[in-house]
Amino acid sequence: MTETYKRVALIGLGLIASSMFWAMKRGNLVDEVTGYARSAETRAKAREIGLCDRVCDTAKEAVEGADLVVLCVPVGAMEAVAKEIAPALMPGATVTDVGSVKRAVIEAVAPNLPEGVHFVPAHPMAGTEHSGPTSGFAELFDGKFCLIVPMQDSDPVAVERLEVLWQDMGAQINRMEDAAHHDLVCAVTSHAPHLIAYTMVGVADDLRRVTDSEVIRYSAAGFRDFTRIAASDPTMWRDVFLTNKDATLEILGRFTEELFALQRAIRTGDGDHLFDYFTRTRAIRRGIIEAGQDTDAPDFGRVKRGS
Amino acid sequence: MTETYKRVALIGLGLIASSMFWAMKRGNLVDEVTGYARSAETRAKAREIGLCDRVCDTAKEAVEGADLVVLCVPVGAMEAVAKEIAPALMPGATVTDVGSVKRAVIEAVAPNLPEGVHFVPAHPMAGTEHSGPTSGFAELFDGKFCLIVPMQDSDPVAVERLEVLWQDMGAQINRMEDAAHHDLVCAVTSHAPHLIAYTMVGVADDLRRVTDSEVIRYSAAGFRDFTRIAASDPTMWRDVFLTNKDATLEILGRFTEELFALQRAIRTGDGDHLFDYFTRTRAIRRGIIEAGQDTDAPDFGRVKRGS
Repeated sequence: MTETYKRVALIGLGLIASSMFWAMKRGNLVDEVTGYARSAETRAKAREIGLCDRVCDTAKEAVEGADLVVLCVPVGAMEAVAKEIAPALMPGATVTDVGSVKRAVIEAVAPNLPEGVHFVPAHPMAGTEHSGPTSGFAELFDGKFCLIVPMQDSDPVAVERLEVLWQDMGAQINRMEDAAHHDLVCAVTSHAPHLIAYTMVGVADDLRRVTDSEVIRYSAAGFRDFTRIAASDPTMWRDVFLTNKDATLEILGRFTEELFALQRAIRTGDGDHLFDYFTRTRAIRRGIIEAGQDTDAPDFGRVKRGS
Repeated sequence: MTETYKRVALIGLGLIASSMFWAMKRGNLVDEVTGYARSAETRAKAREIGLCDRVCDTAKEAVEGADLVVLCVPVGAMEAVAKEIAPALMPGATVTDVGSVKRAVIEAVAPNLPEGVHFVPAHPMAGTEHSGPTSGFAELFDGKFCLIVPMQDSDPVAVERLEVLWQDMGAQINRMEDAAHHDLVCAVTSHAPHLIAYTMVGVADDLRRVTDSEVIRYSAAGFRDFTRIAASDPTMWRDVFLTNKDATLEILGRFTEELFALQRAIRTGDGDHLFDYFTRTRAIRRGIIEAGQDTDAPDFGRVKRGS
């Protein structure tokens, strides 16, 4: 049987870290969870709401004696945090992360860890539009995927031990051997859609002839789904785009190409092109429903049907 | 007190018409609702599920004796339907529609109606990703907006009578005097977002290196919200884009401009630009929540929080 962790340190106390804490408490999975956040305000809030068994005033203190250290900071802050905690890491400990990109995190973290410490990159594919220490909840990972992206020299036992923790927190595990492939898949399913949603919301905000109140009042017709995505944490997303630059720009290039083709079809009145395109995209939706990754309830269940 | 309708004819039996029928039944708002659909299969399905008090085999038969006729066909079919029913319309009757664009519908319908028949264009801003006669339900319009876009010579009594019906079906009424402004507002809040979602889903479908199963499996990270929008009725949306060409292309032009600026910021590593942009778009989301047009529950309430 796989050995469980005794002490887990969460570095950074936002949506993911706080949800991990509540999920670990729910399952009584570890003896002690320590936590650290750079901002004194966040640490105070964490203490107030009982987030973590012990909130520490330095990252070093938090990782001391921990057999698992989870880096839950924005991708751009990973390198500095890795350097900061390195001297305090316990030999044999595992370091993991929850970043949305993997190549950049591996480059930032791996070279800074001491020998005898295992690094197992991971990416829980779960989130909401809320952020900060109060936004977490135990059920966030239930049924969601957590991608484990081990490096070639990752210790198999350390990898498996981390996978068991994620499963115990409710997630489904998938191992992805290639960090570059991970980054491309995420550029398609997450990073490009987020940038596009941000862009559309920004455009609506800019338009002077369409008053704010009209955009908001009539948002139910499609726009509001973009605004939810575009309400995600700005720091996190800035770092995602800066560190997954190539894959994101590649997908956005493909997107622009397709968008221009559809714009031309509109301009020239090519209804068949539009109809065929819109018919094809329906099939993907069916696949997502069948895979259990979304609800078929109309409008995400926001509308309630009569009996 | 405003006189209610005795007989309402629904021409076209998709999501909106079927929801109107169930909403009228729920409130016991009219004596009889007749219905017509071009396809024999749809008419048979309507009879089978009790959709409409009487399903007719021709549009003319459906509108005979009706004091309200609602055109619920795709925008591109409005002109032909108006011509078809014109000879059978009762003097003093009101014709309305539920199309997502208003200038093109007014041009297609108004010139074809006989004197003595009132035309009051309308646009209920409600829908789901489902379509067809079985997709309707009485609650679809509850709390949603229905835009009434009267023409300059629309009879005030006929306008008010239609507004009362929409309110009785659960909708909030807003009068918009300018059809061109209506079309621009909808291009921002609905038409451009739909085209963008369709495009992104198409791109994902095209990518060979990212297998279908990965796109679907990892869709919860943003992409699936696009797929819901992109599962909407292809015929309806083809017609929307072809008939609201100018406003849609204008908004898409603005969108492309902004997207290029953000792409450049990613390429040049301008994190401040990205951060500022993403911070600004958050404010719009707050406005939508405050206006009661969406739920603040994380992830649209798809995740259930513990107690």
